[in-house]
Amino acid sequence: MAVYTDVSESQLTAFLADYDLGPLLSYKGIAEGVENSNFLLRTGCGTFILTLYEKRVNRGDLPFFVGLMEHLAERGLSCPLPVHTRAGESLGELSGRPAAIFTFLEGMWTRRPSAEHCRAVGGAMARMHAEAADFRLHRANGLALADWRPLFDSCHGRADEVEAGLSDEIAAELTFLEANWPADIPRGIIHADLFPDNVFFLAGELSGLIDFYFACDDLLAYDLAIGLCAWCFEADASFNVTKGRALLEGYAAVRPLLDEELAVLPVLCRGASLRFLLTRLYDWLNTPEGSFVTKKDPKEYLRKLRFHRSVDSASGYGFDTERMKA
Amino acid sequence: MAVYTDVSESQLTAFLADYDLGPLLSYKGIAEGVENSNFLLRTGCGTFILTLYEKRVNRGDLPFFVGLMEHLAERGLSCPLPVHTRAGESLGELSGRPAAIFTFLEGMWTRRPSAEHCRAVGGAMARMHAEAADFRLHRANGLALADWRPLFDSCHGRADEVEAGLSDEIAAELTFLEANWPADIPRGIIHADLFPDNVFFLAGELSGLIDFYFACDDLLAYDLAIGLCAWCFEADASFNVTKGRALLEGYAAVRPLLDEELAVLPVLCRGASLRFLLTRLYDWLNTPEGSFVTKKDPKEYLRKLRFHRSVDSASGYGFDTERMKA
Repeated sequence: MAVYTDVSESQLTAFLADYDLGPLLSYKGIAEGVENSNFLLRTGCGTFILTLYEKRVNRGDLPFFVGLMEHLAERGLSCPLPVHTRAGESLGELSGRPAAIFTFLEGMWTRRPSAEHCRAVGGAMARMHAEAADFRLHRANGLALADWRPLFDSCHGRADEVEAGLSDEIAAELTFLEANWPADIPRGIIHADLFPDNVFFLAGELSGLIDFYFACDDLLAYDLAIGLCAWCFEADASFNVTKGRALLEGYAAVRPLLDEELAVLPVLCRGASLRFLLTRLYDWLNTPEGSFVTKKDPKEYLRKLRFHRSVDSASGYGFDTERMKA
Repeated sequence: MAVYTDVSESQLTAFLADYDLGPLLSYKGIAEGVENSNFLLRTGCGTFILTLYEKRVNRGDLPFFVGLMEHLAERGLSCPLPVHTRAGESLGELSGRPAAIFTFLEGMWTRRPSAEHCRAVGGAMARMHAEAADFRLHRANGLALADWRPLFDSCHGRADEVEAGLSDEIAAELTFLEANWPADIPRGIIHADLFPDNVFFLAGELSGLIDFYFACDDLLAYDLAIGLCAWCFEADASFNVTKGRALLEGYAAVRPLLDEELAVLPVLCRGASLRFLLTRLYDWLNTPEGSFVTKKDPKEYLRKLRFHRSVDSASGYGFDTERMKA
């Protein structure tokens, strides 16, 4: 949950004076997003989301994030649309923070994804990849392969507090990934954090994607690998191949996958697992006890990583060459 | 901020099946209330607040709280109105918690109360007292005079960690209040927590009162004393007599104050200050370091208590006998 910065009515009224949104009726801090402060805003023109960008977000990245949402929304992808001031700006300043207003998306994120949810997510991810292809801005992935070793170095001395042998296991995995990470497969803008809480459904249909604050340029199939990790495991860490097949089919129906992408999918999934294992490990070791922040268990991603090491081809994720190939 | 219990779409859909509120469109946990989990709920029929009652709230008190809001709303006081199921129930169960749905009140709480805000709050408090007079349920104040000594006993050994001599000062104050607490002045249902964050304003007008979860039977003028403490001090702990006068005038214009009530106002204000000093002291000493909960400084109420000890009549709060007497 996240409201780090309070906003007074007079500050917000002054901020809204630059917009054509009618009178301010109410605003409530909402428990959504972990990097920013978010408010549900009601004005004479309807319901909106007000986001204040906290220090963990690089200000220089904001034109990319906000511009990408605008680009995607203009292409018909359902995602929050930045609202412009009368002067045409979509980023302002409020309570000493960069701030933006977005349209409100109805819908709920699903706590229990089904295969049909996975199929819809695969399709939406592929549409996002396709529509973002001609977006004019770019952003390097701040949590890419090259960033994992420094992250590991900052916590490897304490990794075995989480599980005996974890430090050695991560070191070996890093060495493997550094030697085997693919380069010559399609690149583009990826969401990079398309977890269930960032996808809304309404009446059984996917109604929108949110939280583009990890979006970046990277291998398109790496986004799929993150999706397989985020959507297709059961609570006991078993991989549900029906969900995997649905996610891959949903994706491939919009953007067919190349043989080269399929061949490296297990390596990409190992990378995606290690990325979340490392950030969770870092947070686990550095979040004070008694904090209200829910610590996410790094071992969940250790179990996923071990599963991916056992997979030797895309068919292990349910990919059916006959039905889905490019 | 408060969302202690997560709710899944399927649980909420099942809960809503008993209501005539149309389809579920979205729900977001909001950072409002410190005792309960609150969600902003949108359905085909509009915007509502969904409250899940956490363990700190006694289930046996819920019919009083929810019934009081319904009673007051029916009398035209602007406060959240409990929404009934088709069977006429206003309390149900969701995610293992008692739960209720309320109408949504537009408006914002004011971070910087003016004298006009204070006047409006005084008037709304008096209307609440008048309209609640014939409410059929009753609830003893769980933080009344008799509860302060046990609360003090649980933390007096560490009170001096906050300020040297604090333990002795509280002990003497308790002894004074136990000997001088009034009995023969009007009683009724009071809000008991009418702080600025529980009063909404819209376009300069008071638009509603919320958070009745400390409401109880007690001395009516004790609510005024809490209001004087909550609304009429400046950030430097100085008492703003213009705001005090406005709050008292606003109140007395609706329900004239008796001589006996005015005479004991300084004692009641000392009691109100001690009540918040003690609960803040308890929380200060018992909230773990590093917790995301903002600890409220007990010394703020120590300074207010000392001010009230210097007041010998209601005129010290701006009460003007010529203009306001019963």
